[in-house]
Amino acid sequence: MQPIHVGLLGLGTVGGGTLTVLQQNAAEIARRAGREIIVSHASSRSLRMAPEALNRVTIMDDPFQLVVQPEVDIVVELIGGCTPARELVLQAIAQGKHVVTANKALIALHGNEIFAAAQQHGVTVAFEAAVAGGIPIIKAVREGLAANHIEWMAGIINGTGNFILTEMRDKGRDFAEVLQEAQALGYAEADPTFDVEGVDAAHKLTILAALAFGIPLQFSACYTEGIGQVQRQDVSNAARLGYRIKQLAFTRKTPRGIELRVHPTLIPEKCLLANVDGVMNAVLAQGDMVGQTLHYGPGAGALPTASSVVADIIEVARTLTTDPHNRVPHLAFQPSELADIPVLPMAEVTTAYYLRLTAQNKPGVLAAVADILGEAGISIKAMFQQEPESGTCEVPLVMLTHPVQERQMNAALGRISDLPDIADDIVRLRVESLR
Amino acid sequence: MQPIHVGLLGLGTVGGGTLTVLQQNAAEIARRAGREIIVSHASSRSLRMAPEALNRVTIMDDPFQLVVQPEVDIVVELIGGCTPARELVLQAIAQGKHVVTANKALIALHGNEIFAAAQQHGVTVAFEAAVAGGIPIIKAVREGLAANHIEWMAGIINGTGNFILTEMRDKGRDFAEVLQEAQALGYAEADPTFDVEGVDAAHKLTILAALAFGIPLQFSACYTEGIGQVQRQDVSNAARLGYRIKQLAFTRKTPRGIELRVHPTLIPEKCLLANVDGVMNAVLAQGDMVGQTLHYGPGAGALPTASSVVADIIEVARTLTTDPHNRVPHLAFQPSELADIPVLPMAEVTTAYYLRLTAQNKPGVLAAVADILGEAGISIKAMFQQEPESGTCEVPLVMLTHPVQERQMNAALGRISDLPDIADDIVRLRVESLR
Repeated sequence: MQPIHVGLLGLGTVGGGTLTVLQQNAAEIARRAGREIIVSHASSRSLRMAPEALNRVTIMDDPFQLVVQPEVDIVVELIGGCTPARELVLQAIAQGKHVVTANKALIALHGNEIFAAAQQHGVTVAFEAAVAGGIPIIKAVREGLAANHIEWMAGIINGTGNFILTEMRDKGRDFAEVLQEAQALGYAEADPTFDVEGVDAAHKLTILAALAFGIPLQFSACYTEGIGQVQRQDVSNAARLGYRIKQLAFTRKTPRGIELRVHPTLIPEKCLLANVDGVMNAVLAQGDMVGQTLHYGPGAGALPTASSVVADIIEVARTLTTDPHNRVPHLAFQPSELADIPVLPMAEVTTAYYLRLTAQNKPGVLAAVADILGEAGISIKAMFQQEPESGTCEVPLVMLTHPVQERQMNAALGRISDLPDIADDIVRLRVESLR
Repeated sequence: MQPIHVGLLGLGTVGGGTLTVLQQNAAEIARRAGREIIVSHASSRSLRMAPEALNRVTIMDDPFQLVVQPEVDIVVELIGGCTPARELVLQAIAQGKHVVTANKALIALHGNEIFAAAQQHGVTVAFEAAVAGGIPIIKAVREGLAANHIEWMAGIINGTGNFILTEMRDKGRDFAEVLQEAQALGYAEADPTFDVEGVDAAHKLTILAALAFGIPLQFSACYTEGIGQVQRQDVSNAARLGYRIKQLAFTRKTPRGIELRVHPTLIPEKCLLANVDGVMNAVLAQGDMVGQTLHYGPGAGALPTASSVVADIIEVARTLTTDPHNRVPHLAFQPSELADIPVLPMAEVTTAYYLRLTAQNKPGVLAAVADILGEAGISIKAMFQQEPESGTCEVPLVMLTHPVQERQMNAALGRISDLPDIADDIVRLRVESLR
């Protein structure tokens, strides 16, 4: 069979990794795919590759020239960001070219438009590497679990955030200190907002929710809360209660709508997911028939991400001759079958809570707090009060509640923070049992 | 599009589960597959299904009649065992029908013949449910990790064996006692040989090794060792050393050949794999590009297994119109590309070891043991000697060695068991660091 010609947009971290995988494992890949896969063209703003790696590759300055090259069968977009990636991908599709991308922001923000264009032109846009790097989670949800109603999915899908929380727990360090180290190690960007505020995880969760429930991509409806608020003492309090704090990306289908949220979350330490540490990623899926499956691996890095990019290239090479109507749909469900289920506002989401209040160490304070919670129908599952540090008469009051709607919790916390003997900075984290 | 008609061979546990999944999730499945999937025919020796579930299903007494039914598009073999399953599958293939099966023994023992026949007739034989039940591990290895040289795979892929070892550890119970309970709970068969002797895991490992390395299926070359030899004290000794004992199915490509082995194994307790407990399954794969990915879920049960069977049915329904040359190859690599790499005899396999010797409590015994190990080039990584129980002068001597070839270890153990002060029943378990 004819070799497949790949055009790479971008030769940065993932682009370079993709070239490496396709060249180093060329024989193994051809043994599997039944044909050679060759990088024929590449475009890049700056060339950092070894010259011998680019021996047989035509380098183009203008990526818009690459996407119209007749010899290129598959365009692989590894530039990142939405501009000019969106325009390039749409032009490639308009040329009848298949596209592979690792770009989670592009898919989360512009996927609906891109998949509609692909559908119209009978081409495939593959994006395994956009979620959880080297873990083949898109394939697992879209095909492996296709017999199930997916009930919920929970993921640790931002390696930087997980590295920070793991270090805070293992070494009792503060958030700011670990963040600095993560930046020095190259795990965190100079602007860490996307990672620590949950935006990166929200991009990926938006994609997973669409695949799980058959809904359009709707990033703007995703709730995010950063991990910067998590303090050292919350990490140790959680441990004392049998939990670990993770930046959890969580989506669930309820009768009233879809929950779509990224926030620091206490999860039981006995869960495998609670034991996913450092920069590793994992996604836990609950299907009505299969029950729980967990998918674990490296969520970032040049070669792990390239592993998924190249798996997509191999798969697209296989579908070149397939009737487009029989391919796996981009968002798991047939385009005509996407459902119009609302995403729930956070006020309507029900979870359990971890609360840390700072109270004056005098009689009646606990009773006043308990009264307010009781009147709001919030019952307490576990509680402890620590001894005041010497020289202060403030005591931390830690509690776990049973599940309650966030609106009620917010109202109760408003009343509690009005109590004269309770400091204003109430820490409130959500708890998921993942059962 | 026309509905797909499925013929079910067998309405037992998995057959009944498959009917349930296809009926209960019919709408969700059609939303994904783009067409209805209907069980039109079924054959069974005894009908235990509720009659309303069989309303629109034609029941046939003779399975050999079912496989020649012109209306049946996909034959789903859920009888188990090799006779008459092999004959039925070959006849279905000869009729040009696609086949889905959950039968690991059939694939491990007769897969080479079955896939050759399928190739010849341009049909697909899908077998996701044959390995690790509801976990989509075949798809992950064959497609998701297709860009990698797989270096090794390690699995906990027999739920019964893992349940027994988990109970022994958690509750300090004896093997025989837990086995009885597993039989009472229905986890273990009345004849538990396949589970506790590692035969079931070896069937599955044989399949994984073929997919990972591009070699033919060769069950007869797989080494198996049962878990019946593991004693309560070995479980607690392992814990003291920072390990857990698991019935590990392990395959690795070495420059001299393929390791293919199932045996009780000490693995570091910090590995996620060591924390896979009870009847759950997990497979850990090491790829040269992606690094490690872990795939975890229920390895058995009617609905989890049916989840994989139905995922295969959906996939086969999609490939009906695909050019056979462009489908994913049965054993991951193109049939012409299978490699003739030998499976190593166990004597040539190198691992670390856990040893438990029973020694007379007198001077010079440890020195004699250490001399023999030293002369064989076997170095000791950790060691402890327990106090003799009162009324006996025998002491247990526990050690972990560094890696050594099994042939050398066997020779050294022969010499050690000849020592007059060492009892004959030396316990020897292998250790894998999984790094």
